[in-house]
Amino acid sequence: MLDAVRTARPRVQVITNPVAQGYTANMLLAIGARPSMTSSPEEIAAFIAVSGSLLVNLGILDRHRRDASLTAVEVAREMGVPWVLDPVKVDISPPRLDFARTLIGMEPDFVRANHDEFVGLGGADTGEEAVRHFAARNLTTVALSGPVDIVTDGTRIVRIANGHPLMDRVTAMGCAGTAVAAAFRAVEPDPLIAAAAALTVMGIAGEVAAAASSGPGSFAGAILDALYGLDAATILEKARLT
Amino acid sequence: MLDAVRTARPRVQVITNPVAQGYTANMLLAIGARPSMTSSPEEIAAFIAVSGSLLVNLGILDRHRRDASLTAVEVAREMGVPWVLDPVKVDISPPRLDFARTLIGMEPDFVRANHDEFVGLGGADTGEEAVRHFAARNLTTVALSGPVDIVTDGTRIVRIANGHPLMDRVTAMGCAGTAVAAAFRAVEPDPLIAAAAALTVMGIAGEVAAAASSGPGSFAGAILDALYGLDAATILEKARLT
Amino acid sequence: MLDAVRTARPRVQVITNPVAQGYTANMLLAIGARPSMTSSPEEIAAFIAVSGSLLVNLGILDRHRRDASLTAVEVAREMGVPWVLDPVKVDISPPRLDFARTLIGMEPDFVRANHDEFVGLGGADTGEEAVRHFAARNLTTVALSGPVDIVTDGTRIVRIANGHPLMDRVTAMGCAGTAVAAAFRAVEPDPLIAAAAALTVMGIAGEVAAAASSGPGSFAGAILDALYGLDAATILEKARLT
Repeated sequence: MLDAVRTARPRVQVITNPVAQGYTANMLLAIGARPSMTSSPEEIAAFIAVSGSLLVNLGILDRHRRDASLTAVEVAREMGVPWVLDPVKVDISPPRLDFARTLIGMEPDFVRANHDEFVGLGGADTGEEAVRHFAARNLTTVALSGPVDIVTDGTRIVRIANGHPLMDRVTAMGCAGTAVAAAFRAVEPDPLIAAAAALTVMGIAGEVAAAASSGPGSFAGAILDALYGLDAATILEKARLT
Repeated sequence: MLDAVRTARPRVQVITNPVAQGYTANMLLAIGARPSMTSSPEEIAAFIAVSGSLLVNLGILDRHRRDASLTAVEVAREMGVPWVLDPVKVDISPPRLDFARTLIGMEPDFVRANHDEFVGLGGADTGEEAVRHFAARNLTTVALSGPVDIVTDGTRIVRIANGHPLMDRVTAMGCAGTAVAAAFRAVEPDPLIAAAAALTVMGIAGEVAAAASSGPGSFAGAILDALYGLDAATILEKARLT
Repeated sequence: MLDAVRTARPRVQVITNPVAQGYTANMLLAIGARPSMTSSPEEIAAFIAVSGSLLVNLGILDRHRRDASLTAVEVAREMGVPWVLDPVKVDISPPRLDFARTLIGMEPDFVRANHDEFVGLGGADTGEEAVRHFAARNLTTVALSGPVDIVTDGTRIVRIANGHPLMDRVTAMGCAGTAVAAAFRAVEPDPLIAAAAALTVMGIAGEVAAAASSGPGSFAGAILDALYGLDAATILEKARLT
């Protein structure tokens, strides 16, 4: 899938928070995708028209980006462009949670969340059955990150045990990881496979980068280098899927 | 204090300029704090309620962030959350200076400024007596950065001679340093001690990072690595306080 | 020219997209210039008054920054501050293209574009004659980036064959490169020479950085280090101008 992205160089339209924009763009470029971050209402349709997928991230949400997100999702659905949702910190902010629920009703290809966000969204807990149930009830795929990531569409389930603690010490790492998943979705029709592959590749890149880093500052760059250089042999050797 | 932050992992609410957001978040993560950058009026109270401190930075100020800053400071004061002010470039922009004066009247725990900003705020000069006088008159603590940093609450005074010239060649380094001070304030009730400790730790991290860098690009990451790895022995060995 | 910037430390006022702000600021600091990123209407004039040049970048354009750009260009022209235009992705967005055409009518010192943007602006193709013709017709200098960069004012022409493919794998690299050209313009009255020197220096820094990098993550920092350390001997040795 990484090879497919490197060859096809899909354009990924990203509506995300200002903290995450630069790092997300650099991560998409590192895997060979072409990022666009525009969110103005008069321009968004033109950008989605040339994109392979759309990512909507709710971090640091303001009214402007909220409106842009709705417009973007509507346009993407009309055009048949797949879209994915990253409901950042919905567990803290009630108005953001309401908005996330509205968006989940608009049929994202998958929703990526961490433990707190998933419980905030209404997951009973983050055990496998609760996640599977949530996915089935909401007719979407859930990619739940944690010590062991869980990806499920309500029927099938993938568990991924890759990753490194330094990934939690770089801002926007999760946001950028969801962008990688969105890029994979642009070249892979099955949302579950796209999301699971992205979390696996991110986790392995994190492990490779940690071995070459002396802290979160060097790690932030090293994981981009790792994604850029990652090959099939390393992925097959290091993937810990169950 | 660094150990206290690493253990308590306080949430720090930051209202800052878009250039500084990513680097500030990464610096807070490097020391173990948890950053939040939200500034929308409908969400800010929910975030401050779970925060240990608030930082208001006036760089690249616009109307939206000006309003958000006022709301945030009011909420923080109601909730008893300490807050600190970074009046970026008030010496250049008269409307920004007016706003900074309004905020100083709202009793920040400390104000961090460089030479030009301090004189812009009405400091007679940046000699020790002028800074001490300004702090006493405004009932706040001043953390003045320069070749030798000065921190004073109008009575006590600390001078810090740590740091490295490369710190002036990375954007948002000062903004991020104030965020470190805000994180320290979340675990230390005395604003003078929190600010002085933060400037000391930042200066030492800058010296450690410079020794491992070949220019401002590698330095920007290396200082995050240094903050992440800094231990008490290194701080005691390198601190140059008078 | 790099020495002149390092000595004079010109202030460069930049109105650019949020993805590019941090990296652009760091690149300006790396070469010794002093960046300012303010774009609020009530403050922009005060900042331009102390600036040596102005850069207007159209990436991720919104209404607020569109208005700020117009105001800034008007103020710069009144004050005699040179200004330059980076019409990012005008080939994709028709409203952005209209706005770029309005700005080109306001006599930028030079316009920097890649192949798609230049054709979007109305260039017949990106052969030398078409670029020269466009520059002559629009009374400006064009700096066209590509495998071989072309800089022309309609009469004179410079071709620059420096650079490295990793430059396309870091977001905002082009935006930041135009900022370097704006900084050079602050110390060099001839727009063609300023733009050509900047593209040459950027290309050489890219080559030096690539030799010290293991991918786009380390490259992003290494090119800042390279710009910070670049000396006349290296530039003379590596420049490939025709």
